[in-house]
Amino acid sequence: MSTTTTLRALTIDNINPHVKEAKYAVRGELAIKSEEYRSQLQKGDGKDLPFDAVISANIGNPQQLDQKPITFFRQVASLLENPLLLEHEDVLIDKLGYKSDVVARAKKLLKDVKSVGAYSQSQGAPGIRESVAKFIEKRDGYPADPKSVYLCAGASSGVNALMNVICASPKTGVLVPIPQYPLYTATLSLLNAKAVPYYLNEESAWSTDVGGIKTALKKAQDEGIDVRAVVIINPGNPTGACLEAEDITSVLKLAAEEKLVVLADEVYQMNVYKGKFSSFKKALRDLQKSDENKDGKFDNVELASMHSTSKGLIGECGHRGGYYEMVGFDEEVSLAIMLEDRANTVMKVVSQVYKFVSIMLCPPVIGQCIVEMMVNPPVEGDPSYELFNQEYERTHKGLQDRANALHKAFEEMEGVSCQPPQGAMYLFPTITLPEKAIKAAEKEGKKPDEFYCLRMLDATGVCVVAGSGFGQKEGTLHFRTTFLAPGVEWVSRITDFHKKFMDEFR
Amino acid sequence: MSTTTTLRALTIDNINPHVKEAKYAVRGELAIKSEEYRSQLQKGDGKDLPFDAVISANIGNPQQLDQKPITFFRQVASLLENPLLLEHEDVLIDKLGYKSDVVARAKKLLKDVKSVGAYSQSQGAPGIRESVAKFIEKRDGYPADPKSVYLCAGASSGVNALMNVICASPKTGVLVPIPQYPLYTATLSLLNAKAVPYYLNEESAWSTDVGGIKTALKKAQDEGIDVRAVVIINPGNPTGACLEAEDITSVLKLAAEEKLVVLADEVYQMNVYKGKFSSFKKALRDLQKSDENKDGKFDNVELASMHSTSKGLIGECGHRGGYYEMVGFDEEVSLAIMLEDRANTVMKVVSQVYKFVSIMLCPPVIGQCIVEMMVNPPVEGDPSYELFNQEYERTHKGLQDRANALHKAFEEMEGVSCQPPQGAMYLFPTITLPEKAIKAAEKEGKKPDEFYCLRMLDATGVCVVAGSGFGQKEGTLHFRTTFLAPGVEWVSRITDFHKKFMDEFR
Repeated sequence: MSTTTTLRALTIDNINPHVKEAKYAVRGELAIKSEEYRSQLQKGDGKDLPFDAVISANIGNPQQLDQKPITFFRQVASLLENPLLLEHEDVLIDKLGYKSDVVARAKKLLKDVKSVGAYSQSQGAPGIRESVAKFIEKRDGYPADPKSVYLCAGASSGVNALMNVICASPKTGVLVPIPQYPLYTATLSLLNAKAVPYYLNEESAWSTDVGGIKTALKKAQDEGIDVRAVVIINPGNPTGACLEAEDITSVLKLAAEEKLVVLADEVYQMNVYKGKFSSFKKALRDLQKSDENKDGKFDNVELASMHSTSKGLIGECGHRGGYYEMVGFDEEVSLAIMLEDRANTVMKVVSQVYKFVSIMLCPPVIGQCIVEMMVNPPVEGDPSYELFNQEYERTHKGLQDRANALHKAFEEMEGVSCQPPQGAMYLFPTITLPEKAIKAAEKEGKKPDEFYCLRMLDATGVCVVAGSGFGQKEGTLHFRTTFLAPGVEWVSRITDFHKKFMDEFR
Repeated sequence: MSTTTTLRALTIDNINPHVKEAKYAVRGELAIKSEEYRSQLQKGDGKDLPFDAVISANIGNPQQLDQKPITFFRQVASLLENPLLLEHEDVLIDKLGYKSDVVARAKKLLKDVKSVGAYSQSQGAPGIRESVAKFIEKRDGYPADPKSVYLCAGASSGVNALMNVICASPKTGVLVPIPQYPLYTATLSLLNAKAVPYYLNEESAWSTDVGGIKTALKKAQDEGIDVRAVVIINPGNPTGACLEAEDITSVLKLAAEEKLVVLADEVYQMNVYKGKFSSFKKALRDLQKSDENKDGKFDNVELASMHSTSKGLIGECGHRGGYYEMVGFDEEVSLAIMLEDRANTVMKVVSQVYKFVSIMLCPPVIGQCIVEMMVNPPVEGDPSYELFNQEYERTHKGLQDRANALHKAFEEMEGVSCQPPQGAMYLFPTITLPEKAIKAAEKEGKKPDEFYCLRMLDATGVCVVAGSGFGQKEGTLHFRTTFLAPGVEWVSRITDFHKKFMDEFR
């Protein structure tokens, strides 16, 4: 115990141990150090640094890396923030290039929320949840119920709510893919529940193998863990992999057999570069309609699907918008339901998820409006469609091109191998480091991949995240990089660094 | 156990028991029922209801109740959402009434955040934290450090972060005033920690008596509870009381003696109708500078002070903006600090609070910008000052007038007594109900104050919150109402209802 124990109520030794245990490398030491470099460069103090700009490839933050916002979204948002502008429709249209559908959308959304400065319902504004339900219906070809949709402050906040309800004791387990976006393990640490790892198959493009999930499940059950849910990230983070339709069905069948809640993290559903995204919701409804469901065994599969405004081709992460749809859950858990009380008054009883989210009042309202525009963008024939479509396609192409260029560069680097980009915003190459580098890392008290990434940052200003921050098979090393940064110059910074690093430690 | 147990992973019987235990009446059954009435009226289905509008007096949601947003804030926000408008400065100024300081502020904030669609640092954008520090410095006359300021999604999210770090085990206790805003007890329930109640003195305008806090503390300590923090809400919610300077000092002295973290909820600091707000931070610095601190015994008092954009005279709760300043904390707990690692590289080490908040990435960026404008509004001489000041004063006067009118009405009601309004947005009258009403409530399985409030909603469409939702002394009954709704017609609805209620159950 340090001497501070005697001075203060809180010390590093007595705070919540679960907060201490939680790990979240995406915004960890490397990220902080990169911010420090950035601030030195801004102040003109960084003249001795071997680079003149920091590239934050550690986090999917498109607009930090010069991705332009979608004009339609931001024009509407400007009117939501200042509705007095609607009194000058002529100026908006004649002088400022706003189209009539921008004005109409702003009016619709203001009707839904009254003011973006007012709290909405804790579950999100009803009119916006209706738009989300329509989007899901159109995407999947099956009805969706606005009452089952919860708006949230980015998918992270949805995961937090769901995990809080699911995790009942230190014996509660949740199956998480490895590698995974560390939100899941961090949240489980905070809730003092168990992350039950199942491994993705790097050799087959990071595919999800339901056999592997089963093995992990049985092992955990044998250890007395009450496994209640399985997390699937599709498209994958950090892997970028897209699940095959049959793998989705297999996961749902396993969920039915083993009574597992399925948490489908589908925030990258628009970031698909090969093939077509297929949702868990659609697969579940297909399965429920199929002959295999004669006995109704798939009727009660509990599925929560997340989506977000942060990623896709809009990249509005600073707005903290998102939603999750909950289907198949017990009404007392997920829905506010109608009940008659003893006086025969019809009463709504608040569900547990609703109560949980109500404690934080409501998601940011302007973020809710961005969700609405994401799920209900301009369509062909709308005045704003042409520009919207141009911007959307340009971003998609830019991501795809950069992903391919980066992948090519990785494939040419000594000891590096990388699965081809399929989806999301990331590549997750595997690296083989010389024994001398591993020893040097050990000497500095660092994991080899952390050591490598730190050296990369120091040499190039490019900030990536070590594979150990996501989990990786024993004995393998990786790093995750986004392919959001414009240009290719930074890619050659990485290849040059890698060559020198290998030469130094060979 | 219900039959659903056999069908699903999650049932009301097996989910996280701490979520089930949590209570949050502000958005509970009454609020849901009022939303139902509102929706019936909107759809034209509510013709048999004895009122034609629902008044949501259950929650401090100013803009839902027609409080107009501050024009300066919203003009700046419109430019932040659509920076392309800055290419038309002439149109903004000549045709749309924007002033030059609106344009300048938007440019400054865009420099701070780059884009409101990009993630900021998890602690909040550095430039905005600098503005907050300057505001605190100006308010208190003592320096403040931007590194100690955390921006957050409304004060609720700050409380959540702080409580997560503080609560280490089921034996951790936090002193909470009764009555209190139920965020505190709900959060402690979720974290499986103990709320240690201390009672406010209704008879002396809901004052805070440090003797009462001590008694509660000793009792809890005797029961083996590790009491680590004390919550003070000033101005009070639901009571509206403002703490006397000497009571603030007494609380700080107790905190020093007993090593308690002080959590000062100061979100209503601008809502003061009698006297002047005085902050805990200033009182702490005064104490530290005083002769009483010769031995340095007040040097390590840990104080976290919360503020928010939701209340005050701006009422921007839908934007989810807020901040907390942490002073006196161990650096490993609260600050990201500089360390040299073994290779003599200077490294920043992430503090536990920083790591916790980073898991949710960052607070909404447009909300952060609203925080900046709240702490740095137009001042005399600025082009936007006159309008800003008019709007600000009008809102202040409106709140004060409505508070007085409502107070007067309560004082005239049979069996009702109410402390005069001092601060915040609430009155919390005490009600004495006839024995017959209490029996009728019992018969319906309801608490007497809930029964009363439900009857009020059914008869008048006015939604208030029963005192039991905030805690109250055994044997007393209250309700909380905001005084935000415009006009006085709804006040007479309450007085008429009350008269009939008393006649019915007399």
